[in-house]
Amino acid sequence: MAKTVEKKKYKVHFNPDNVEIVVDQGEDLLQAAIAAGVRIYASCGGAGTCGTCKVQVEKGDVETTRTDKITGEEFSKGIRQACQSRVLSDLSIYVPVESRLEKAVLAREQKRVSEVLATGWRFVPPLSKYFVELPPPTLDDNSSDLSRLLRGLKQRYHLSNLSIDFQVMKKLARTLRDGDWKATVTTLVTAVKPRAGDRRRPRVINIEVGDTRDKHYSLAFDIGTTTVCGQLLDLNRGRVVAESMAYNGQIRYGQDVITRIAYCQKTGGLKKLQQAVVATINDIIGELQDQSKIETEHISHIMAAGNTTMTQILLGLNPQYLRLTPYTPVANFFPPVPANSLGIQVSDHAHLFSFPAVASYVGGDIVSGIVGSGVHQRKALTFFMDVGTNGEIVVGNSDWMVTASCSAGPAFEGGGVKHGIIAAEGAIEDVKINPATFEPKIGTIGNARPKGICGSGLINTVAEMLETGVIGQNGKFNQDLSTRRVREGADGYEYVLARAAETQTGSDIVITEVDIDNLMRAKAAMYAGCQTLSKSVGIECCNFDQVIIAGAFGSHIDIKRAITIGLLPELPEERFIFIGNGSLLGARLTSFSTDLLDDARRVAQMMTNFELSENVDFMNNYVAALFLPHTNTEEFPTVSKKLAGRSNNNPKERTKI
Amino acid sequence: MAKTVEKKKYKVHFNPDNVEIVVDQGEDLLQAAIAAGVRIYASCGGAGTCGTCKVQVEKGDVETTRTDKITGEEFSKGIRQACQSRVLSDLSIYVPVESRLEKAVLAREQKRVSEVLATGWRFVPPLSKYFVELPPPTLDDNSSDLSRLLRGLKQRYHLSNLSIDFQVMKKLARTLRDGDWKATVTTLVTAVKPRAGDRRRPRVINIEVGDTRDKHYSLAFDIGTTTVCGQLLDLNRGRVVAESMAYNGQIRYGQDVITRIAYCQKTGGLKKLQQAVVATINDIIGELQDQSKIETEHISHIMAAGNTTMTQILLGLNPQYLRLTPYTPVANFFPPVPANSLGIQVSDHAHLFSFPAVASYVGGDIVSGIVGSGVHQRKALTFFMDVGTNGEIVVGNSDWMVTASCSAGPAFEGGGVKHGIIAAEGAIEDVKINPATFEPKIGTIGNARPKGICGSGLINTVAEMLETGVIGQNGKFNQDLSTRRVREGADGYEYVLARAAETQTGSDIVITEVDIDNLMRAKAAMYAGCQTLSKSVGIECCNFDQVIIAGAFGSHIDIKRAITIGLLPELPEERFIFIGNGSLLGARLTSFSTDLLDDARRVAQMMTNFELSENVDFMNNYVAALFLPHTNTEEFPTVSKKLAGRSNNNPKERTKI
Repeated sequence: MAKTVEKKKYKVHFNPDNVEIVVDQGEDLLQAAIAAGVRIYASCGGAGTCGTCKVQVEKGDVETTRTDKITGEEFSKGIRQACQSRVLSDLSIYVPVESRLEKAVLAREQKRVSEVLATGWRFVPPLSKYFVELPPPTLDDNSSDLSRLLRGLKQRYHLSNLSIDFQVMKKLARTLRDGDWKATVTTLVTAVKPRAGDRRRPRVINIEVGDTRDKHYSLAFDIGTTTVCGQLLDLNRGRVVAESMAYNGQIRYGQDVITRIAYCQKTGGLKKLQQAVVATINDIIGELQDQSKIETEHISHIMAAGNTTMTQILLGLNPQYLRLTPYTPVANFFPPVPANSLGIQVSDHAHLFSFPAVASYVGGDIVSGIVGSGVHQRKALTFFMDVGTNGEIVVGNSDWMVTASCSAGPAFEGGGVKHGIIAAEGAIEDVKINPATFEPKIGTIGNARPKGICGSGLINTVAEMLETGVIGQNGKFNQDLSTRRVREGADGYEYVLARAAETQTGSDIVITEVDIDNLMRAKAAMYAGCQTLSKSVGIECCNFDQVIIAGAFGSHIDIKRAITIGLLPELPEERFIFIGNGSLLGARLTSFSTDLLDDARRVAQMMTNFELSENVDFMNNYVAALFLPHTNTEEFPTVSKKLAGRSNNNPKERTKI
Repeated sequence: MAKTVEKKKYKVHFNPDNVEIVVDQGEDLLQAAIAAGVRIYASCGGAGTCGTCKVQVEKGDVETTRTDKITGEEFSKGIRQACQSRVLSDLSIYVPVESRLEKAVLAREQKRVSEVLATGWRFVPPLSKYFVELPPPTLDDNSSDLSRLLRGLKQRYHLSNLSIDFQVMKKLARTLRDGDWKATVTTLVTAVKPRAGDRRRPRVINIEVGDTRDKHYSLAFDIGTTTVCGQLLDLNRGRVVAESMAYNGQIRYGQDVITRIAYCQKTGGLKKLQQAVVATINDIIGELQDQSKIETEHISHIMAAGNTTMTQILLGLNPQYLRLTPYTPVANFFPPVPANSLGIQVSDHAHLFSFPAVASYVGGDIVSGIVGSGVHQRKALTFFMDVGTNGEIVVGNSDWMVTASCSAGPAFEGGGVKHGIIAAEGAIEDVKINPATFEPKIGTIGNARPKGICGSGLINTVAEMLETGVIGQNGKFNQDLSTRRVREGADGYEYVLARAAETQTGSDIVITEVDIDNLMRAKAAMYAGCQTLSKSVGIECCNFDQVIIAGAFGSHIDIKRAITIGLLPELPEERFIFIGNGSLLGARLTSFSTDLLDDARRVAQMMTNFELSENVDFMNNYVAALFLPHTNTEEFPTVSKKLAGRSNNNPKERTKI
């Protein structure tokens, strides 16, 4: 739309939030919603391709570009894609439940999480506080305030080789005198351990009046693509004082990292995304402070772990080359930056340290998880996986590690699935199908009326459909069953999980062959990645001593079900360990131990990254894994045997999907 | 004056500059002049005590606080102290010649300067440029941009252990690709040499597209209380490309450091002074760039030397404790700071490094002078002096150094002297008195009509008056001479150097007994300081192998005359060496040699500072030196003998002064 000198302004009213905003004529409804603070789910970031941002125009005119995401019936009801609709008059807009981004799920209890921790580390946080009482200057000893301070630190604590932040120098004279020559300094050891022979050079980052050693806190953050989790840590006692999480504010601009990187290429896009995640971080810090009543001035550091895209965006480093072949990050190691220079609302002296990354799609969150769970400390042959849009996997032990990212697609997060939603209240997460009647019994998050299906629900449903013969090992529906649950819909055959009358959306919730296909691609990518990495180092999947599953999503996976569909290798259940948010775990532990922080750098350097996207072996493994659980029955002997015993195995191939 | 909601505004017109400014009612004329950019000399910083800021009210009304600096005759002519006069109406103001701050003198050729330089240093500037051609990333080698760069630097230049400024990381991806993987990085070695065994950790401070090695420049600055001098240096060729100087803009707020420190205690005072000197620095940089046509982006560093007060104010470190006993600076060593964070108009990547200081009144300028002249490299027993308001002195050699500051008072800079002015055009700098008629023959700077007398002129005049018997060794006038040049004036006896008809000011220019007394105090402080330091290490002044005289003022001293009045020790003339601006010399040489930069730190640490202000020995020496040349004739045998041969020695003491 060409710029005009004076654009007309219109009021847009959003229901059920009951908020109103004035926008220029021609503004799209997604941007209007973002500006109004209305949380709309737009997984493709406004490209018009995902159809998740549907809204209903109750009153007024929009100009819309119709795509195949809107059915004729929807169109006639005034349903439009927000990102494809431009304001032409005052409007009243209704945001239906399935398009809303809800918060409840974040509080969902994580079951079955048993943390395996890094062990043997000393409790020596990289941040320290030292109290000194200095002799006041006299004519016989009128050395500079700084010399006096350094002398005091050397005498009492044998500290030397310190460097002084200029900010500290600025308030040094005042602080020493206000405290009658009693003061507390905060030091930060350079996150990067110098080489053998070099000594560390701790930085003095703060000085406070009097003895403040008992107020000594920092923050640990996992900056996830979907959620951001923060903990407020007591650095004297080595414990978590408060914890909170929130959706990453960037979610409004796109669900996955690729969409966000694309958004960064728009004018001002990087800045918007950077500000969005900073706003989320600030919200969490506010919440942590509300919980703990700890003041900003006593929080001296932020340890942040995130994937490479999240890290680069947070630091304002343009991520564009992460998604262009050959996929290069700006850096693997990031210097600490003053947190408030990024817009984070902490004191001047607090720095943010970003975990080192391995590659464009194996980021600091994975390094953090590895270090936090102590994989690098043990001889046990480990398969570590963090399942999500990009399933990152690591194979190795204390001596070596190989890693890769598998582009699993968004199915695990409910994306690309007809009624897929993120794991919010009302998401179907468990399904039992009666093998005689093929009637389902569904369980939802929060026991609410269903409104969609989340990733773990999808795995469970597909496993259940497979075991009950509703689908075959090729993922196609068995059309010979005597049930009306299986029917032909707009996208081909589908299974009705919940009927319109039972749902929040007022429509049937179904699972389609396209959905199953997407899940199969996702699980095939993960499994093929695991096989490719393992073979590259001469190992079979059955040799793993332990499988560590990280990630909030991961901890909701039912192991048996995941093995059934071929997502996880067929191993005894006791070898699987869930660590929940491994990224946050590592960020916390490295906040407590400089040893572990050194390990993080070493781990990031020792990991060998495999690019799977153009790897022939991976492609072969991937194609072989596009079956339930796998075309090679030797990979899943028990499951294959069980499935072979079913009556109605493997429906005929159909051409129409 | 109480604040009112709506203050009346008035126009103030300044002549002869012909500029006008609108100010609030009640604003003082000195502030109005500063705001209008009219350069008025106000040596006391607006306290009303110096009387140097006299202006003439041509039209309009001011409210003035009259002090004894304004005679009845002046008052009736409309002459007022600008700092004591508040605007009550539209005004026309004339700024007379003696109140103006002029620039011509800065270009004055410095004679007799023979630099003794530090020797034996390697040409290895702390700033380096390295050009790399990197292999573009491929899928087989898609390490991060930073890793690629570091690998390139290591392979080609064997550089390792580098740290990367975050600013560089921000533009890394763009720069490497824009230059088709050819780029030039700029590194800065930490100004502070690590301890033995530790390796240096150079910082990468900039990266540029392509090969820019031939454009490699930095700045050296001497930040003096009165003048600021800058040089633009070519770091490839080790030479000065351009040079410029200007009065320190702070001079409007007071002539000496004590007045400026006091001004810093006013609300916003520190900031004003900081901005004033930064404006001066920016003017000089602009001038250097005009001369050299070198672009801002190719200037990568500033090496600045100044006294402790100037350094602290430039860095925004409150100097208040410098003037309060026991005189403590904030620090002796200052970290490099991004120059544009101080307001200096250079690129983001350029840092300003401040020379380390010894004590509150022995600053980085002295350390710079010592290092620049190589005192620390030689066994020769050296007396180093920098004469000014605070004469700083150093005694020592390569093994040890003692130092002190002598509060000489402003007489050497023309302050506290009835017709004293700074060394500007029209300043009387040389005087010959006919021993028969006692008529003077004067020489002025720029051969202009006289308008006052500068510091070196004062030394020469007093020495000439002493040798011709116009004054006695006690500094009092001989009233028995048959000349009308010696007469009784408002401040006691005086000698008329120039009659009203010959001068620019339209008044007689005289030298009074009070003026002579001030000069005697100043030279006594310097000489007593030298004696006290020397005795503390068991040395006599006559043992010095060399006397190095630094400072712009110093290089205009006539050695014989200075010995005659007892300012310099009586030594053979060939032992005296003038180095001109030692501070700038050191700043330049350390910009060329990291070795010398390391030396600077070592020198600052090895110097032992003596506080003379409450030292009994110093007080005794001082009182003994309040005579021309000295009460102890053995200190000045030749001069004493010559004076003893005069006819009319030592006029009787008089009580009336």
